[in-house]
Amino acid sequence: MIYERVALIGLGLIAGSIALAAKRRGLAEEIVGTARTAQTRETALRIGLVDQVFATPAEAVAGVDLVILCVPVGAMADVAAEIGPHLKPGCVVSDVGSVKQAVIDAVAPHLPAGTVFVPAHPLAGTEHSGPESGFATLFDNRFCILTPPEDTAPQDVARYRGFWEGMGARVEEMDAEHHDRVLAVTSHVPHLIAYTMVGVADDLRRVTNSEVIKFSAAGFRDFTRIAASDPTMWRDVFLNNEAATLEILGRFTEELFTLQRAIRKGDGDLLFDHFTRTRAIRRGILDAGQDTDAPDFGRKRND
Amino acid sequence: MIYERVALIGLGLIAGSIALAAKRRGLAEEIVGTARTAQTRETALRIGLVDQVFATPAEAVAGVDLVILCVPVGAMADVAAEIGPHLKPGCVVSDVGSVKQAVIDAVAPHLPAGTVFVPAHPLAGTEHSGPESGFATLFDNRFCILTPPEDTAPQDVARYRGFWEGMGARVEEMDAEHHDRVLAVTSHVPHLIAYTMVGVADDLRRVTNSEVIKFSAAGFRDFTRIAASDPTMWRDVFLNNEAATLEILGRFTEELFTLQRAIRKGDGDLLFDHFTRTRAIRRGILDAGQDTDAPDFGRKRND
Ligand SMILES: NC(=O)c1ccc[n+]([C@@H]2O[C@H](COP(=O)([O-])OP(=O)(O)OC[C@H]3O[C@@H](n4cnc5c(N)ncnc54)[C@H](OP(=O)(O)O)[C@@H]3O)[C@@H](O)[C@H]2O)c1
Ligand SMILES: NC(=O)c1ccc[n+]([C@@H]2O[C@H](COP(=O)([O-])OP(=O)(O)OC[C@H]3O[C@@H](n4cnc5c(N)ncnc54)[C@H](OP(=O)(O)O)[C@@H]3O)[C@@H](O)[C@H]2O)c1
Repeated sequence: MIYERVALIGLGLIAGSIALAAKRRGLAEEIVGTARTAQTRETALRIGLVDQVFATPAEAVAGVDLVILCVPVGAMADVAAEIGPHLKPGCVVSDVGSVKQAVIDAVAPHLPAGTVFVPAHPLAGTEHSGPESGFATLFDNRFCILTPPEDTAPQDVARYRGFWEGMGARVEEMDAEHHDRVLAVTSHVPHLIAYTMVGVADDLRRVTNSEVIKFSAAGFRDFTRIAASDPTMWRDVFLNNEAATLEILGRFTEELFTLQRAIRKGDGDLLFDHFTRTRAIRRGILDAGQDTDAPDFGRKRND
Repeated sequence: MIYERVALIGLGLIAGSIALAAKRRGLAEEIVGTARTAQTRETALRIGLVDQVFATPAEAVAGVDLVILCVPVGAMADVAAEIGPHLKPGCVVSDVGSVKQAVIDAVAPHLPAGTVFVPAHPLAGTEHSGPESGFATLFDNRFCILTPPEDTAPQDVARYRGFWEGMGARVEEMDAEHHDRVLAVTSHVPHLIAYTMVGVADDLRRVTNSEVIKFSAAGFRDFTRIAASDPTMWRDVFLNNEAATLEILGRFTEELFTLQRAIRKGDGDLLFDHFTRTRAIRRGILDAGQDTDAPDFGRKRND
């Protein structure tokens, strides 16, 4: 047991998975929670995610050692303002937001002296959301990035790190601004591009939607999975990681125009060299154990 | 048995899978083949893909009922010119090229009167290539698009359709130009975009490659899988489907700029509406049985 009593604010995919993963390994004596709607609170209680639910964040955090904010990034400020006055001294506050600097700016001002803030971002998710989508192994072997302010006591960080490691995650630390830039590359811009491409396909007159759907296995399918992620979450990510997203998008557009021009001019060598270079990255990902080398794009051979 | 003797020109992923799938179901009495290098020919013979190999396409097609060109799109014209004089009357010639109009333009002029041309494109592939990457179930439940010229005898098309259905594929027919536009949307532009994004990641100074690789599970990983596809094949696809690729790319850039502007202006409603619309397409793909609804992006829950 690492924490006595833990409160989860928001009871969706990530909170649900935290609850199940923490229970599986006995990391908390008691887990309580709250969500915006009564329906989510009732579901979370009924399926046994949490031991107790409360109608408001203020009530949920009373007497707890650890609070994790598991709401969309844009909702963090309001929640922090509401819980601030009710936190007990020594309480650790964390979050799971996909953007870190904006969340720190939104949350830190509301936390009273004597509490400890350790922002976190588990790099694990699915295209589903809501309390019933959580599962205990979501974080297994996935990275969780902590971005603690410089003055955080090392033992507080170490304890919270232990909590995530207990849930199966591989924990890394970096500063918030760097986190936001790394994630812009590995997650935010890829999502925006996938959303864009799926929107284009939906919009064409000469190719029907049913053709797009039927023939999606040729590459497009992977984009649709990414572009089916929760609209609220992703709206908030882009609004709150604007600078890094726009910077990487600028680079993307530049590179895309170079390839586009090569196609127009029939410059096969440029295309070939570019496509050869990008293969090496894939090899690195396989070597790092972040994917499998299955010859079938993840589908089972007999689907 | 649908054909007596079949020749495969090129012995890579697609040809290897055709050989294994056709043998599994007894669709051909004998399968022979050829490839550019002696090494590929020897491997194909050693692992039993084909019954016999020949040093040249001209020798391989002697006396066969069906020839399938399984070489990169850019190599089709030369191969067709070489085999033309050696085809027996009534022989069916097909190909598996990812682009159809350009292949028709390249191949048709070389085929003698009395032979039958039924171009085809199986929508199935992996990021691997070469004779050892083929597997018998690659085409199971995947689409194969035929684009026969209008004057092709219906019974010749029906027979070749039966060959693909026998290998497990769902066969569709459409005209070549429409094929190229549909595939630009569902495959060619998604590949170009993935290649672009992976190139950008490889090029950054402030985010290291090892960070990109480590944290790829957050969305980027799916792009790397697409961008690891064979450079020769994809160079040829873009050079040979220039018009449709550039048209769809134009639409993509327009839509990307709209979303980019919304991020810059903080227009959350526009982002939210767009992201909500793209979800519906995903639902259609699941309903069409072209992917699974696994909550874990295809990775096994316990990887
Ligand atoms: N999904 C991912 O892939 C992923 C990965 C890593 C990190 N994250 C981050 O994790 C956080 C939660 O994501 P999730 O996927 O778990 O979302 P989710 O399944 O949609 O759950 C969100 C929860 O937050 C509650 N909520 C929403 N708006 C609220 C508000 N304004 N005030 C109070 N509560 C509110 C919801 O309550 P109701 O159900 O009652 O509406 C729900 O319980 C986000 O910050 C996201 O950036 C997500
Ligand atoms: N991979 C996919 O996802 C996919 C899907 C649908 C359709 N296709 C199409 O299928 C075709 C073959 O792709 P693949 O994935 O099977 O490729 P692959 O595994 O790389 O095999 C290509 C074969 O073609 C031979 N070859 C290459 N260049 C040649 C040339 N100039 N002259 C004669 N032979 C040559 C190669 O011989 P060596 O080994 O001796 O060099 C090899 O046997 C392409 O037209 C592609 O567009 C591919």
